[in-house]
Amino acid sequence: MAVDGTDQRALQYEQTLMYGRYTQELGVYAKEEAARLREDSRHRRSISDHSPSLKLLEYEKGRCVKCRICAVHCQRFLMSRVGEDWIFLILLGLVMALVSFVMDFCIALLLQAQKWMYGGLDSNVILQYLAWVTYPVVLISFSSGFTHIVAPQAAGSGIPEMKTILRGVVLKEYLTLKTFVAKVVGLTCALGSGLPLGKEGPFVHIASLCAALLCKFMSFFGGIYENESRNIEMLAAACAVGVGCCFAAPIGGVLFSIEVTSTFFAVRNYWRGFFAATFSAFIFRVLAVWNRDEETITALFKTRFRLDFPFDLQELPAFAVIGIASGFGGALFVYLNRLIVQFMRKQKTINKFLMKKRLLYPALVTLLISTLTFPPGLGQFMAGQLTQKETLVSFFDNRTWAKQGIAEDFNYDSHSAAWKHPQANVFIVLVIFIVMKFWMSALATTLPVPCGAFMPVFVIGAAFGRLVGESMAAWFPEGINTDGTIYPIVPGGYAVVGAAALSGAVTHTVSTAVIVFELTGQISHILPIMIAVILANAVAQSLQPSIYDSIIRIKKLPYLPELGWGHHEKYNIRVEDIMVRNVRYITLNSTYRDLHEILLMGNLKTLALVESAESMILLGSIERTQLQALLTQHLGRQRRLEYLRECTEAEKKRVSVVSTPSSEEEGHKVNHEVRFQIFTEESSFPPARPVSPKPLKPALKRSSVAERNTEIPTSPHDTGIGFKNLLCTRPQTDAMEDDPDAEDDMTLREIEEWEEQQLDEQVNFNNCKIDPAPFQLVERTSLHKTHTIFSLLGLDHAYVTSIGRLIGVVSLRELRKAIEGSMTVKGVKVRPPLASFRDSGTSGTSSESEATELHKLWDRHTSLTLPREHQPNTSDSDEKSQ
Amino acid sequence: MAVDGTDQRALQYEQTLMYGRYTQELGVYAKEEAARLREDSRHRRSISDHSPSLKLLEYEKGRCVKCRICAVHCQRFLMSRVGEDWIFLILLGLVMALVSFVMDFCIALLLQAQKWMYGGLDSNVILQYLAWVTYPVVLISFSSGFTHIVAPQAAGSGIPEMKTILRGVVLKEYLTLKTFVAKVVGLTCALGSGLPLGKEGPFVHIASLCAALLCKFMSFFGGIYENESRNIEMLAAACAVGVGCCFAAPIGGVLFSIEVTSTFFAVRNYWRGFFAATFSAFIFRVLAVWNRDEETITALFKTRFRLDFPFDLQELPAFAVIGIASGFGGALFVYLNRLIVQFMRKQKTINKFLMKKRLLYPALVTLLISTLTFPPGLGQFMAGQLTQKETLVSFFDNRTWAKQGIAEDFNYDSHSAAWKHPQANVFIVLVIFIVMKFWMSALATTLPVPCGAFMPVFVIGAAFGRLVGESMAAWFPEGINTDGTIYPIVPGGYAVVGAAALSGAVTHTVSTAVIVFELTGQISHILPIMIAVILANAVAQSLQPSIYDSIIRIKKLPYLPELGWGHHEKYNIRVEDIMVRNVRYITLNSTYRDLHEILLMGNLKTLALVESAESMILLGSIERTQLQALLTQHLGRQRRLEYLRECTEAEKKRVSVVSTPSSEEEGHKVNHEVRFQIFTEESSFPPARPVSPKPLKPALKRSSVAERNTEIPTSPHDTGIGFKNLLCTRPQTDAMEDDPDAEDDMTLREIEEWEEQQLDEQVNFNNCKIDPAPFQLVERTSLHKTHTIFSLLGLDHAYVTSIGRLIGVVSLRELRKAIEGSMTVKGVKVRPPLASFRDSGTSGTSSESEATELHKLWDRHTSLTLPREHQPNTSDSDEKSQ
Repeated sequence: MAVDGTDQRALQYEQTLMYGRYTQELGVYAKEEAARLREDSRHRRSISDHSPSLKLLEYEKGRCVKCRICAVHCQRFLMSRVGEDWIFLILLGLVMALVSFVMDFCIALLLQAQKWMYGGLDSNVILQYLAWVTYPVVLISFSSGFTHIVAPQAAGSGIPEMKTILRGVVLKEYLTLKTFVAKVVGLTCALGSGLPLGKEGPFVHIASLCAALLCKFMSFFGGIYENESRNIEMLAAACAVGVGCCFAAPIGGVLFSIEVTSTFFAVRNYWRGFFAATFSAFIFRVLAVWNRDEETITALFKTRFRLDFPFDLQELPAFAVIGIASGFGGALFVYLNRLIVQFMRKQKTINKFLMKKRLLYPALVTLLISTLTFPPGLGQFMAGQLTQKETLVSFFDNRTWAKQGIAEDFNYDSHSAAWKHPQANVFIVLVIFIVMKFWMSALATTLPVPCGAFMPVFVIGAAFGRLVGESMAAWFPEGINTDGTIYPIVPGGYAVVGAAALSGAVTHTVSTAVIVFELTGQISHILPIMIAVILANAVAQSLQPSIYDSIIRIKKLPYLPELGWGHHEKYNIRVEDIMVRNVRYITLNSTYRDLHEILLMGNLKTLALVESAESMILLGSIERTQLQALLTQHLGRQRRLEYLRECTEAEKKRVSVVSTPSSEEEGHKVNHEVRFQIFTEESSFPPARPVSPKPLKPALKRSSVAERNTEIPTSPHDTGIGFKNLLCTRPQTDAMEDDPDAEDDMTLREIEEWEEQQLDEQVNFNNCKIDPAPFQLVERTSLHKTHTIFSLLGLDHAYVTSIGRLIGVVSLRELRKAIEGSMTVKGVKVRPPLASFRDSGTSGTSSESEATELHKLWDRHTSLTLPREHQPNTSDSDEKSQ
Repeated sequence: MAVDGTDQRALQYEQTLMYGRYTQELGVYAKEEAARLREDSRHRRSISDHSPSLKLLEYEKGRCVKCRICAVHCQRFLMSRVGEDWIFLILLGLVMALVSFVMDFCIALLLQAQKWMYGGLDSNVILQYLAWVTYPVVLISFSSGFTHIVAPQAAGSGIPEMKTILRGVVLKEYLTLKTFVAKVVGLTCALGSGLPLGKEGPFVHIASLCAALLCKFMSFFGGIYENESRNIEMLAAACAVGVGCCFAAPIGGVLFSIEVTSTFFAVRNYWRGFFAATFSAFIFRVLAVWNRDEETITALFKTRFRLDFPFDLQELPAFAVIGIASGFGGALFVYLNRLIVQFMRKQKTINKFLMKKRLLYPALVTLLISTLTFPPGLGQFMAGQLTQKETLVSFFDNRTWAKQGIAEDFNYDSHSAAWKHPQANVFIVLVIFIVMKFWMSALATTLPVPCGAFMPVFVIGAAFGRLVGESMAAWFPEGINTDGTIYPIVPGGYAVVGAAALSGAVTHTVSTAVIVFELTGQISHILPIMIAVILANAVAQSLQPSIYDSIIRIKKLPYLPELGWGHHEKYNIRVEDIMVRNVRYITLNSTYRDLHEILLMGNLKTLALVESAESMILLGSIERTQLQALLTQHLGRQRRLEYLRECTEAEKKRVSVVSTPSSEEEGHKVNHEVRFQIFTEESSFPPARPVSPKPLKPALKRSSVAERNTEIPTSPHDTGIGFKNLLCTRPQTDAMEDDPDAEDDMTLREIEEWEEQQLDEQVNFNNCKIDPAPFQLVERTSLHKTHTIFSLLGLDHAYVTSIGRLIGVVSLRELRKAIEGSMTVKGVKVRPPLASFRDSGTSGTSSESEATELHKLWDRHTSLTLPREHQPNTSDSDEKSQ
């Protein structure tokens, strides 16, 4: 395989990732790399599997046998315990709680330092401004630079990548220690700068990194950590931990991570997320208690709304309005975010300049945002001096700010005082805050630093809710209830509703409602929040993709879009409408020339292997890289040298025994003989391929590591024929060692001739990895069902077969096209859909398609016995009869 | 098909269901029935699809064209709107909220009536006792009898059945109007009796019934409601609505229904559940406000715990103890429940007696329970006069009952007063309550009335929590906190924790925590509750199955058990270890005799169709019933009559034209000719089956309804040959009409002879429904992966293939055996598992198995061309070389 190409791709990879692009080849490369790494680790494991017990036994040689046995038992017991899920989950929860706590502590310190600097310089406004502005610029620049140097993959939220990884795609370098360090340090600095950035997206990524690293670490103890499907389950749990310990919201964390990262969720993994997230949230809050920040374990943003009459039924329309407006706002936010990214990309001159000076863009954006929030300047109209946390606390306050409120004895405490401007009304301040923070957040989240969009959006939503709440309080100073008792309106409740609704709209999740309950420690507003969140989701989902899906599209990550809300035309599109009928395939008796041509023609990742071009019976699929390797090997220098050696050996033999044709001629003859042998005389000659069919079962029963070690390199056959090594595939190094004196003395023309002649040989698939059961669909499978299966099983292509015969292929691309409607759906007739897929027991599928398909097969079957003439008249009459 | 057999099974069905048994054949029968019903409804639809617009056009004949077009457009618009999910979900939520509210109202009335009777007769204890006892006995007997007469399927919880249905199995009669009526009426009476029964399980069933009926109703308007996968999605949403409107807990409802009914959950259906459950809970609570029961929308069992210091960190061990104890208690409850059912079944004499007098068992149980709770009797030690709701309210009270509490000024209100016994301590009363209610609930839930176990268990858990809480309050009268302020212990909080933990343990769910938050309207105890619920789940899941899985096993419903907690040996078992190697198959050139023998041999639901016994290439699978129908049709009277007619016609021809062989002989000849025609001379003769291969595509493009209507009944071919109708399959009625004078004048011997001769013909699969793509696994797929795929796709069997060749079959039974460990796992070697299934891109599968498999195929491939001798020497040498 071309090593240069790999390096080049790696380079390209790093270049593109800085700006978050992702190319198709990259995916292939990542997969190859991953496969290689896995192979390596497996080899390593196969060694380490044996060594500990051996070492132990050696060490204990002198002692008594009982002790030794006991020690081995103990070790085995410990290993089995370590392999249990709950130990892993507790460790994960513990580590993440510590990381979260320490990070929060550092961020608080950084923010305090800024306040201290700003406060200390209050004699000079210019110095104050410089301090206010320089501090975040330095932090963001450092964060951006550090991230870029250590691990560019750490930039951004991380949720889109986790979504892709959980779908089964291996993204290179996304789960390494380097990325972990870059993400933690970068995020701390970014949040410490005071820019409107969030920590919840990156925390999902950090928790996943943590889980992946823990898995690697634990795999020293037990083999179970090598299981890929288990690791994916653990990653899913880790995502829950990430959100859970970020907000101290275990339930919301689990639900949010499910909604955001999964398409299909295995309920049996549910407890894992809950267990780890609860433990993590518990430790996170206990640390706060131990640190004397809190008296006991309570919510992060505790509210104190009244319990007996949280809201009036007549307030519900106002909550619904918040929900609908948040829906539009959320869609606008996603659109704005994407627009900024696309604008930056399109402007080629800016882009080139920024590519050179990587730190300039973040620094400029930070300068702009911090200038606008400078408290003595425009910041006074938008509570610029408050941190995100303080802002939220002030929004969730259950006292009314508007003057008309009943709480006349309201003394503005430190946080709420920021909203009281001598000249401007509280409504104006809130509106300015919302508008400014809206575009600032959309802009800030495009920075190449580790950052999330959840928290900024949450704050904006709370502000909007507060605005509506204050308006309601001003409108109905005595409350709405008419039954005697006065229940004033609680604007804080509106803020909670707004926060949940806007963050739900941006992320397309319903579980923000639960997060809000856990954050505030109150569930009294459950119905308003649920109504607002659902309405916001309904509006936002019909307008824009979620922020994470939007990033996935921007970064061109391989992902399958969701089926929209109730687009029931999806039920009526069939696989046959979207499949590619012109499938590239190789047959069992393809020559290397066919292979070469097919590889040149397209860039499909896998190719179908069919029995023959006539029967088209699908046997399996082969990866492109496998075929490339096959071709390279067959035409490579190594085989040519072997061929030369054969020639010389044959020459020697000829000298010693009888006269034989010239070496060139023999080469020809050998080739013919080989083909002959395989296809016509197999009954009388031994098979050219040496693996006997008989001892297959015992071979399969052995451990596959052992198998690989013993079987792959050695496939020579011990027939007495002189050209026995001609088709034998041996590893490069091996041959190099035992063939030091072989010289490549062929001329270029000879090489070409030799290659031409080699290309006409039939492909030997023996050392080629074949997927023996690629996923198959039927042509009448509905798009809906196809989508389900693709997302369930994480496929990226599926073959469409009709009674064993390959008739088409559907890949993610076709599916994506069909779903996103870029493929016209017109002309597709409405048909009652296939009742049930692959479950003939409950299926009401009409029989005619199968019957006709069977007919074809029947025809094929009979045509194998006798050739058959085509009779157009008959088929015409058949047509009429239908 | 044997009609008698069907009736017999239906009978058996009704008989067994009374006591909740479910046999394998029943499942088959249910599926057949369902398929038949679906077929019928489709026919009906195909008629109704056309008629409305036709009618409309007729009606509008006189009016102007514009109006007509407009009307059609309007109608189409309305129909498309009606097809949207949210309208369906709103309707579902509305109906369910109304049902829930009305039922609650009726139950309250019934309970009030009992209290009124009991209170009015306080002059005479015997009369009081009679009234107290007779009332529930009558109600339960009525409920049991009504349920039995109207729909025996309505008995019990319904969640196990819903779990089975959502897995894709069609259970007959579980989703009909009759069942709905029986469930609603039966449940109202059962709960009105005051027995410890719950409404949440039946409500899941009622909501699903509602959804199914709504689907049927809505299908008059739009075709989308015919889609089966959509209906399953709607059923999943309905389950959420059921729990949601029962407890006014939308979020908990969604999560609980997911945990209880699903194995894999599609996140895209998430919003459906939330939307419907929120709407339903909203309406349910709004009805209470309109009914003047409540001032505004609040929680059902509102608590008033303090917010600032809900619990001390040092109380957490007590909460953990509640969790662990609840785990054991939950497992014991499930065990006790199963024990009672099994005991009742084993006692044959009792069983026989009870079978005859169906109402006796419920009546006796009710008599026993109500006697024991009679307030002046033993009931005084267990607050017998309180209803379930009142009991819960008193448990969740935030005042301390124990005398040592600080709340000395505590005046026992109506509910809490019941716990104050002049002679007995509150602790003793609580212990008696817990013990008595525990077995009573376990016994009551075995009654053949619609009832759930959730609520009784919830109450017992609350009692246990209260007991621990009161003990803690007695132990630490000043609270545990040492930092100056006195925060007394809140026993109500412990009750909430206990309720969540025990119900979580019995149902194996974590979401009871969320239900509890929504029920109480407070989330301040989130960490204690989560910890207790998780611990309870951990303990209970390692001891017993959940109550629903237990019922599934008792009723023998077709279901796949879950993989346990971290049994990682599951990752090391492969399909090849569990598969059945001796697969029954039919080949394309099987004769009817082979078919007959295979059908006689086993009772597999589906049979594999392979290309030929040598190649074993899997082409598809055919249902047993299809084959039976094929055989019945081929040997049936209808065909014999046709054959006779042919004979007479041929006789006539012979008279008119030339001399031909005798009819008997001609029959032979015809048969031979047919075989000849199909298998050897297809090239020169028209194919016997009339569907031409050419016009397949356009045919498939048409609506399948149209197809069915036009194509199936008409498959004659228009060749001029005389025996054209011989193999033509025509509906029975058709033939009867145009063949009134055909007489069956064959003797028995002749019939036998004819049948024998017919049996030797090759099977004609044309009118047979073939599943062209049955699910295939590879032999190295791990058990874990297999389980995932089976539960994801709802399979009940999968074929194991190796490069197209059928080598085994795995059904639910083998999988269940392997998981439940009844199959020995010993001797299975630990192998590094298959890294990824069917995703060759990321798979690190070793290539050797594929290579060897391919070899086999290669051999087969070449052997097709030439026969091949076996050479043991060669294979031996091959083996050595490996």
